[in-house]
Amino acid sequence: MSTIHKFDLLISEVGPRDGLQSVATTMATADKCAWIDALVAAGVQEIEVGSFVSPKLLPQMADAAEVVQHAIRHASVTIMALVPNIKGAEAAMRAGAHKITLPVSASPAHSMANVRKTPEQMLEQVRAITALRDEIAPQVHIEAGISTAFGCTIQGPVPEDDVIALAVACVQAGADESGLSDTTGMANPAQVKRLFTRLRSELGNQAGAAHMHNTRGLGLTNCLAAYEAGVRTFDSSQAGLGGCPYAPGASGNVVTEDLVFMFEAMGLRTGIDIERLLTARNTLARGLPGEALYGMLPPAGLPKGFKPHAYALRSAV
Amino acid sequence: MSTIHKFDLLISEVGPRDGLQSVATTMATADKCAWIDALVAAGVQEIEVGSFVSPKLLPQMADAAEVVQHAIRHASVTIMALVPNIKGAEAAMRAGAHKITLPVSASPAHSMANVRKTPEQMLEQVRAITALRDEIAPQVHIEAGISTAFGCTIQGPVPEDDVIALAVACVQAGADESGLSDTTGMANPAQVKRLFTRLRSELGNQAGAAHMHNTRGLGLTNCLAAYEAGVRTFDSSQAGLGGCPYAPGASGNVVTEDLVFMFEAMGLRTGIDIERLLTARNTLARGLPGEALYGMLPPAGLPKGFKPHAYALRSAV
Repeated sequence: MSTIHKFDLLISEVGPRDGLQSVATTMATADKCAWIDALVAAGVQEIEVGSFVSPKLLPQMADAAEVVQHAIRHASVTIMALVPNIKGAEAAMRAGAHKITLPVSASPAHSMANVRKTPEQMLEQVRAITALRDEIAPQVHIEAGISTAFGCTIQGPVPEDDVIALAVACVQAGADESGLSDTTGMANPAQVKRLFTRLRSELGNQAGAAHMHNTRGLGLTNCLAAYEAGVRTFDSSQAGLGGCPYAPGASGNVVTEDLVFMFEAMGLRTGIDIERLLTARNTLARGLPGEALYGMLPPAGLPKGFKPHAYALRSAV
Repeated sequence: MSTIHKFDLLISEVGPRDGLQSVATTMATADKCAWIDALVAAGVQEIEVGSFVSPKLLPQMADAAEVVQHAIRHASVTIMALVPNIKGAEAAMRAGAHKITLPVSASPAHSMANVRKTPEQMLEQVRAITALRDEIAPQVHIEAGISTAFGCTIQGPVPEDDVIALAVACVQAGADESGLSDTTGMANPAQVKRLFTRLRSELGNQAGAAHMHNTRGLGLTNCLAAYEAGVRTFDSSQAGLGGCPYAPGASGNVVTEDLVFMFEAMGLRTGIDIERLLTARNTLARGLPGEALYGMLPPAGLPKGFKPHAYALRSAV
């Protein structure tokens, strides 16, 4: 799972979930599976493939179980799903997901808008879900993703003490790890470094992923700051698809292509082949014709003479 | 000049030179002056307002002397010009520029393409120009900007030893400082940190600005890495205008709006008021109707509850 990395760091591709739930078009199941296959062929080690929510709320995710069942055929890849409640968690575990992620918002206002529960009620869900996991699928890894960890579009700033306390409470409630999400694209590198440093001092190896958005252009700088604070798992979305439908204006996950390029150029091994990642981008484009795709590396191409790991023997930042 | 900063760091706005020389439209002199005035009103402390080159090569820069003469009325702002040779240097000094920047390329191939001189011939220019400065305008500050310092679109990788040796040679030839430019958008944060750390260990306070491009999305991460290596002067272009016409595909300076937002959000004082900077962007847009303007902060707006310097009393990254 995420705490055991085969490479220098783990890029957790969230596009098939976070990206696809945010676009109006519903991608056909076969196209989702082809995209996931292409991501696996590029060397992606972990993929969040769907969300187990009511199809009335998110029709784009109605085939989540089918997609999980397809994706888990790739034996070497961790297949994740997002679940907002125990019903979704049971469905995800029964479908065979290796890892599930629970969004737990540090902003009460955002929590109500997103999952219609207070943060305290979500902690009860964490307890119930981890108990169910112990009973029916003890091998499943459970991550709490603390959303609005760096600010909320509804309430504004979110106290850092609240964020850290909630992340710790999720682990105490049974989650295997707690990560921090910049749901709203409000984070800055100093804040990211400060919060992840605190998180790691509280939770050690149970401190989880950095999930950054690029709303104001700081997505990659925030990943770099998180890396410097010791984070080794990064969520991103191919072509920058996605965002949070309940955080107005907060569209835009970090672009996987640009993130992988940054780390590989620094000499850090992601396990991902950039050329094949661009092939997967084409597969995505075929499945979502007309959808805007983002990223700077894809149109520019790799620099002349670029060799991944060219600096691997030198120290990184 | 650039070594004396009134704030935590100095944003050196290069749009009126680097941006405008790269777009097909020639902005009217009055519009350039209005844009510069709006930048000054936003608190920008240093502006590169033109290039003293042949108007046959760059007709967009034909009014450089007139623009300098307007801009230097703003007594508190450092007005810069780019010059490729001694003829341009004399014209810039006679117009009243406070600071001149000389592009000296670490890649012989790029140097020939850009200024039709080898790096060694450019060093002779630095000697001649600094001698002229001592004679006719001793108060003028001279910066050498080492271009293609992080890679070249023609020759590929550029040896780091060559870059540092050239930067040191420029200072030995009389330049007040040497900065490093990612002319081609090929830099990564580890490389930036390594090179600027070496530069500062060789040159101390005569190590100059970081001039980064956003070609592959790493512009801000490279600025962050340079900041961490001790750099305190950053070139950027409003709306990301600009690039190098002799480095194919290498368009896109770092966007001033996003860069200022990053540093201010981190609690670092740039002296620049972001709202007024957005007003200056509108002035730019009026002077260049139809031109593409870049940047993530401008469409997203400031985060709810954002206060510049909100974290000023806390330590930055």
